[in-house]
Amino acid sequence: MAVTPSASFSLTLRIRLENEAGMLNDVTSAITGAGGSITAIDTVNADGNQIVRDIAVDARSREHWDQIIGAVNELGGLELIDWTDRTFQLHEGGKIAQLNKHPLKSRDDLSMAYTPGVARVCRAISEDPELAFRYTIKSNYVAVVTDGSAVLGLGDIGPRAAMPVMEGKAMLLKEFAGVDAFPICLDTKDPDEIVAAVKAIAPGFGGINLEDISSPRCFEIEERLKGELDIPVFHDDQHGTAVVVMAALFNALKVTGKRLEDIHVAMVGLGAAGIAVTRMLLQVGVADIVGCDTKGAIYVGRPDWDEMHPLKRWYAENTNQDRRTGGPSEVLEGADLFIGLSGPGVVEASDLDRMNEDAMVFAMANPEPEVPPEEAAPRVRIIATGRSDYPNQINNVLCFPGLFRGALDARATRITEEMKLAAAYGIADVIPENELSEDYIVPSVFDRRVVEAVATAVGDEARRAGIARADQAVEIGEPTLDVRTPARST
Amino acid sequence: MAVTPSASFSLTLRIRLENEAGMLNDVTSAITGAGGSITAIDTVNADGNQIVRDIAVDARSREHWDQIIGAVNELGGLELIDWTDRTFQLHEGGKIAQLNKHPLKSRDDLSMAYTPGVARVCRAISEDPELAFRYTIKSNYVAVVTDGSAVLGLGDIGPRAAMPVMEGKAMLLKEFAGVDAFPICLDTKDPDEIVAAVKAIAPGFGGINLEDISSPRCFEIEERLKGELDIPVFHDDQHGTAVVVMAALFNALKVTGKRLEDIHVAMVGLGAAGIAVTRMLLQVGVADIVGCDTKGAIYVGRPDWDEMHPLKRWYAENTNQDRRTGGPSEVLEGADLFIGLSGPGVVEASDLDRMNEDAMVFAMANPEPEVPPEEAAPRVRIIATGRSDYPNQINNVLCFPGLFRGALDARATRITEEMKLAAAYGIADVIPENELSEDYIVPSVFDRRVVEAVATAVGDEARRAGIARADQAVEIGEPTLDVRTPARST
Repeated sequence: MAVTPSASFSLTLRIRLENEAGMLNDVTSAITGAGGSITAIDTVNADGNQIVRDIAVDARSREHWDQIIGAVNELGGLELIDWTDRTFQLHEGGKIAQLNKHPLKSRDDLSMAYTPGVARVCRAISEDPELAFRYTIKSNYVAVVTDGSAVLGLGDIGPRAAMPVMEGKAMLLKEFAGVDAFPICLDTKDPDEIVAAVKAIAPGFGGINLEDISSPRCFEIEERLKGELDIPVFHDDQHGTAVVVMAALFNALKVTGKRLEDIHVAMVGLGAAGIAVTRMLLQVGVADIVGCDTKGAIYVGRPDWDEMHPLKRWYAENTNQDRRTGGPSEVLEGADLFIGLSGPGVVEASDLDRMNEDAMVFAMANPEPEVPPEEAAPRVRIIATGRSDYPNQINNVLCFPGLFRGALDARATRITEEMKLAAAYGIADVIPENELSEDYIVPSVFDRRVVEAVATAVGDEARRAGIARADQAVEIGEPTLDVRTPARST
Repeated sequence: MAVTPSASFSLTLRIRLENEAGMLNDVTSAITGAGGSITAIDTVNADGNQIVRDIAVDARSREHWDQIIGAVNELGGLELIDWTDRTFQLHEGGKIAQLNKHPLKSRDDLSMAYTPGVARVCRAISEDPELAFRYTIKSNYVAVVTDGSAVLGLGDIGPRAAMPVMEGKAMLLKEFAGVDAFPICLDTKDPDEIVAAVKAIAPGFGGINLEDISSPRCFEIEERLKGELDIPVFHDDQHGTAVVVMAALFNALKVTGKRLEDIHVAMVGLGAAGIAVTRMLLQVGVADIVGCDTKGAIYVGRPDWDEMHPLKRWYAENTNQDRRTGGPSEVLEGADLFIGLSGPGVVEASDLDRMNEDAMVFAMANPEPEVPPEEAAPRVRIIATGRSDYPNQINNVLCFPGLFRGALDARATRITEEMKLAAAYGIADVIPENELSEDYIVPSVFDRRVVEAVATAVGDEARRAGIARADQAVEIGEPTLDVRTPARST
């Protein structure tokens, strides 16, 4: 698949030009001739005969930059002053900061926000710990926690190198749902130490978003934390993916007219996300699932059964009752839905011909899907990927901001299976049935209706289940300063 | 000592009045008659014959509120609609929030700040971990860590109730020095677990500010963390206090003409701050110090020697070489400087008459100093307290914001004794010698020159000592986005 220029390889060229007709045109021609995509041109300063311009260019790779820069340098009558990697530039000093909600300009400000006034607030919380939700950041702050062991497709790059992803996640929570978040990158990969550290820091947070922790440790860590903390713990790589896959499936079924209980599912990739998706499929009544790991279809008694991880044994015992064997291309035979959470090239496009009519393909490997979407499209009814440059992007950002918004506003003690399912229905139902189509089963990540739909669905379910500590829904957005229901003396 | 109305007991009264001449005057008279101090009057709305006003009133205590509200209610022709505790109101939802430095409005924004572009930044840091200081929030973020065991004068109120103080500390770091800070309130009091948790979360931070951890555990925790982390670890209750005491002393000596090596020091209160102050006094060459704990002067072989904590034995071995005995009032005999870090009433004002001529008294117990300042003033040359409503306030906020600013900008690996001393001289030297007086030995906490002086002194010393990882000073304030020195392809 040809890679197209993108903002992730965007650079800014600062060029001094003779201020003559046609010069700029020569430069832009050179850039586009070298395959660069110009996204913006600004004038930095103009001085008599010369003009300095910034030209923002999307490229395909770092190597591609050299070609573009080379093409510009070959032109006469200009000077390439400097060039900037826009992605690195945006990361200078980190992507998030702390914001004070109130000024500290006077002694009175200090005496209310700090000593001595703060002591009265501390004493009130000490007497009634639930007041921490009212008078501290606990009400709106989520920890984004990783050990850096499975970051994106980069693997175990450690806590320092994981920070840019966790900062990005915090940005998404804030931008999409008004949830404050702070990245916590842990300098340990020991599950006991991870659990101990997260438990230790939990009092100041209203929720814990686990992120990019490698499988199978992630399951144990999440289960233990859920058991020990009274705030939501959510491993996004598992459940965020599962929720959005379910949302996509609900709408795909509406388009194809198939039913949950009838479909045959071929699943490739049994990492954290694959197992979580399978659990949700079973929960909603999908009866026929065959999962493949790197050794092919998984079933009870497979030759490696004795050394099989308990989670995979669980998988075998709850799926593939016909004990089908073979690799991904074999299990596609007779499948209605292919779910890929693995890597590129695990099936050929022609393998998709073995699927049932009106086949649905969710090929979510990133950046390269399990099967090239262009080749898959003519052979199946619906194709969804993890990418933003094809229709039907299955992206966790559709779930986690609204889910935490709803859970925080309800002050939920945990995230239940029903809350995740409510989130999936919430996402799916954002698209009215008369707008659904093969190319539109998943709302856009920029569809602002999504976060509200998810938050409402999740909060309502928490209240229904009796695990909400807040009485009623709070408006979406910034934590409110309610001046009409002040703390009263008693 | 009579308590004066203050902002820490400030309330807002919302009152509906007949819109008649003299009505507002009646209300303000009633409030001031009851001892309230009016700080602001706003009109909420006016509607024909009636007007709704908010009146902000400083009071002395919660009980005082009842008197003020009672006085207002006794008036006819008005309705007290509501009243609000301004300190609690300011704490609603917490005092700090997360701020995104860049918008996330388009797919291009997402692809640079998050996937796929972020992966390139992660990979770069993975290859060179020092780049975390450049491309993540580590460069400017400090963790404010407590276990809630010794919060203000409230004692062991636990991590949830400690949050408002830690949030306030984070606000001060941001407001005074542009340092981002995040409160971490730990749900454990076990030193091993505290050390493990702080070590675990350290990769994302550029510094650790320990706060309100009870003595003597705080010494062990700080020492162990200093030994194991490559970023500054600073227990503010110890060293912040010590630095500002030293600054006050340096200027007090200029005013009185005394010399460090000649003065006799009587020290009352041997908690975390008392021990840290003593260490700094010894470091700068003060030879004669007698310290008192609750059992009186401490000396080698005191009757409780066998069960004495090793820290107090260290204290006895390094001070009071004449083995003086007795309580605070006895050790004041012949002292030039009294340092109180204990509680109210440990000495009588008349005890101060036993001190040498030109006596200096730093009575820092809060909110009530060891000796009432009004009574002490006529008997000594210089009096300083921890309070904002008397001259010479010895307040840690003069130290920690600039100290972290300087340490972060230098990317110092630790805070040395010399850096603390440099901070003390930096604070002292903010006041030009010709402006120094008995009532002006400590700069105001709102003197913006202080943070710059401290940051520069601390950074310079770090570079001199060879523990700075950054080449040169960075401008005070927000982390800069330097677009002219971009990351280059290599």
